[in-house]
Amino acid sequence: MAHHAADSTHLAPLAPSTRTLLGPGPSEVPPRVLAAMGYPLLGHLDPEFVALMDETQTFLRRVMRTTNPLTLAVSGTGSAGMEAVVVNLIEPGDKMLVCVNGVFGGRMVDVAERAGAVVTAIERPYGEAFDPEEVRTALKQVQPKVVGIVHAETSTGVLQPVEEIAKLAHEHGALIALDTVTSLAGVPVEIDAWGIDAVYSGTQKCLSCPPGLAPVSFGPRAVETIQKRTHKVQSWYLDMTMIMRYWGSDRFYHHTAPISMNYALRESLALVLEEGLEVRFARHLRNHLALKAGLKALGIAYVPAEGFQLPQLNCIRIPEGIEDVPVRKRLLEQWGIEIGGGLGALKGKAWRIGLMGHSSRPANVTLVLAALETCLRDLGYACQPGAAVAAAADSYRLAAESVAVS
Amino acid sequence: MAHHAADSTHLAPLAPSTRTLLGPGPSEVPPRVLAAMGYPLLGHLDPEFVALMDETQTFLRRVMRTTNPLTLAVSGTGSAGMEAVVVNLIEPGDKMLVCVNGVFGGRMVDVAERAGAVVTAIERPYGEAFDPEEVRTALKQVQPKVVGIVHAETSTGVLQPVEEIAKLAHEHGALIALDTVTSLAGVPVEIDAWGIDAVYSGTQKCLSCPPGLAPVSFGPRAVETIQKRTHKVQSWYLDMTMIMRYWGSDRFYHHTAPISMNYALRESLALVLEEGLEVRFARHLRNHLALKAGLKALGIAYVPAEGFQLPQLNCIRIPEGIEDVPVRKRLLEQWGIEIGGGLGALKGKAWRIGLMGHSSRPANVTLVLAALETCLRDLGYACQPGAAVAAAADSYRLAAESVAVS
Repeated sequence: MAHHAADSTHLAPLAPSTRTLLGPGPSEVPPRVLAAMGYPLLGHLDPEFVALMDETQTFLRRVMRTTNPLTLAVSGTGSAGMEAVVVNLIEPGDKMLVCVNGVFGGRMVDVAERAGAVVTAIERPYGEAFDPEEVRTALKQVQPKVVGIVHAETSTGVLQPVEEIAKLAHEHGALIALDTVTSLAGVPVEIDAWGIDAVYSGTQKCLSCPPGLAPVSFGPRAVETIQKRTHKVQSWYLDMTMIMRYWGSDRFYHHTAPISMNYALRESLALVLEEGLEVRFARHLRNHLALKAGLKALGIAYVPAEGFQLPQLNCIRIPEGIEDVPVRKRLLEQWGIEIGGGLGALKGKAWRIGLMGHSSRPANVTLVLAALETCLRDLGYACQPGAAVAAAADSYRLAAESVAVS
Repeated sequence: MAHHAADSTHLAPLAPSTRTLLGPGPSEVPPRVLAAMGYPLLGHLDPEFVALMDETQTFLRRVMRTTNPLTLAVSGTGSAGMEAVVVNLIEPGDKMLVCVNGVFGGRMVDVAERAGAVVTAIERPYGEAFDPEEVRTALKQVQPKVVGIVHAETSTGVLQPVEEIAKLAHEHGALIALDTVTSLAGVPVEIDAWGIDAVYSGTQKCLSCPPGLAPVSFGPRAVETIQKRTHKVQSWYLDMTMIMRYWGSDRFYHHTAPISMNYALRESLALVLEEGLEVRFARHLRNHLALKAGLKALGIAYVPAEGFQLPQLNCIRIPEGIEDVPVRKRLLEQWGIEIGGGLGALKGKAWRIGLMGHSSRPANVTLVLAALETCLRDLGYACQPGAAVAAAADSYRLAAESVAVS
């Protein structure tokens, strides 16, 4: 990003370097979505923009597999989506049970406490998932109004099965709020079939849209809860009772929607639907298995146990004797590859390789394995030259054969 | 925006119509800024992105005329900026005095009450500005912790002089928080010279960047107030004590910054600085005077009194016997021109013609006058054909001559 001194009157245009984005998000953005970001703007009350909002809602419902009317994009990043769900459902003094097995469960506790909730957190170590039985026990004890849980923990790469937990929440009269920031459009997310009452996501993970919007959806029980509130929602900006009037048939002005971000979201959702959700999930899985085979050939293990590994976010243990930062620095500087470091309890101990949305491609799997192997071998790590890429190629071959047979 | 049915597997790309944006924002976005929106992404912790954040802060300080270290862009629209300023300065039970002479002053009351403030609102009718004396009286009575006031009321087109009011606030031991959403980069905004303690703005007005970020700045008294808080900021997403660690030298991860929006803001600030603030203010004034001359020729009056009219947002009275919606509808459908309707007390009674940032051009002034005159004459309004455009041309000629003489 070369440019003149800041006090020059001529300021050279921005010229960001090209990256291969294989961290925990943002993921790479397809050309069609980038193109839409650069379109001239419509006004936020223009009939064409209003039609785009309608269409975006329709697309979002299909991607989330829900019929919830109150499904829309909040004008902030995924964390704003988390806050929107919490502050709309919680009133001061309400009890909330939060399942914490990583940074984002921990964040939900903080957000809920700030909203005046009396929070009970149950914990699992980083890298583990919750068993429905421990949630049942906590539900009995706490009798919360809302249960909050993360479907795909971005900090640990853990996939949390939630269908059974949602059922238990309802049996105990609680609503369930789900974080799908990293899961949506990468693994199955079944809002209606699982009975999820409120859900939020982000755009910059498996939707492969730039960061800046947070898709949310509220089911009938959640909407009823919001309508029965006795206190105003503490955040004006995130107050669904007002936002739904702008996204609803009223078109009542609330705030100026981020026009270009909404263009991009519309295009990214269109691409997801054109590919088809099941095909997209299979693609994420196929690239994950190839990466995993390559990592195995390098002797690198996953943090989450088998069966709980997110295909779109591979959280792996840094090999013994290898330092975190020098490897990531070299990947970035030599190849322009971004992978993620560990967060929280995994800082310095894990890497996170994201294969999300448009980033989930054989080229990226092959490149990151080849580059990582080179880095590791240069640092004295013992491994067979070329083994990682070969193992990935075998995995792809196997996948192609199984498709041909079936 | 023609495309296939929503349940088709092929969803035609977005194709928004071309608009001339002369409403209260978003304004038109220059090609260089649009191009930056479409650049492939860097990660939010990439050294190049971090350098861009530093640079954006430097540029923002120059545009705001401040040396405040805590100057950055909040990841939401202007209303999120308002909420960020209020929730960081206010703790439950704090007294806040809000000056309300339009929709956005009213919004500040709502936001402050949700933050737990005990709010006293003083009011002026829509279209009028506050006199420092009435603020002094209220300050004496209320003894607030914070005074909130809007510099450029987007709903009424009123410019509020604030230097004297800021001085009075300090004399009474209060902080002053200023809304510069519509003023920044359109008319002089002197954060340090006026002693403003906290300020927020938006990107989609005179900065001519798409909506989605809210520049904010906090002076030393405001930072001290934030650091002395005894309650956590109620919004996790907008908590400056955490956000400043991401924008500061720590680079501590808070949330995923909207990368593309930050690219665009960097470019739009660069364009503002390349043009020069004083040259930019003069341009806004010149185009305003030409529009005003043309409107006068049409017999159309301004809502705000002389001396309080914002050059970038011309709030004018709808002529007797003319209906609001049919005119705006026709401007949009026939010429693709967006102008704004009245808000709140001015709904149906006023139009708002924005000449903000890149929209403030002689071509736009000439086009909107010609189109408006055509609409009005077709509706039976009596005016001299061609008079509006001719009056604007005279105004430009006069301006050019006065430059040549000086």
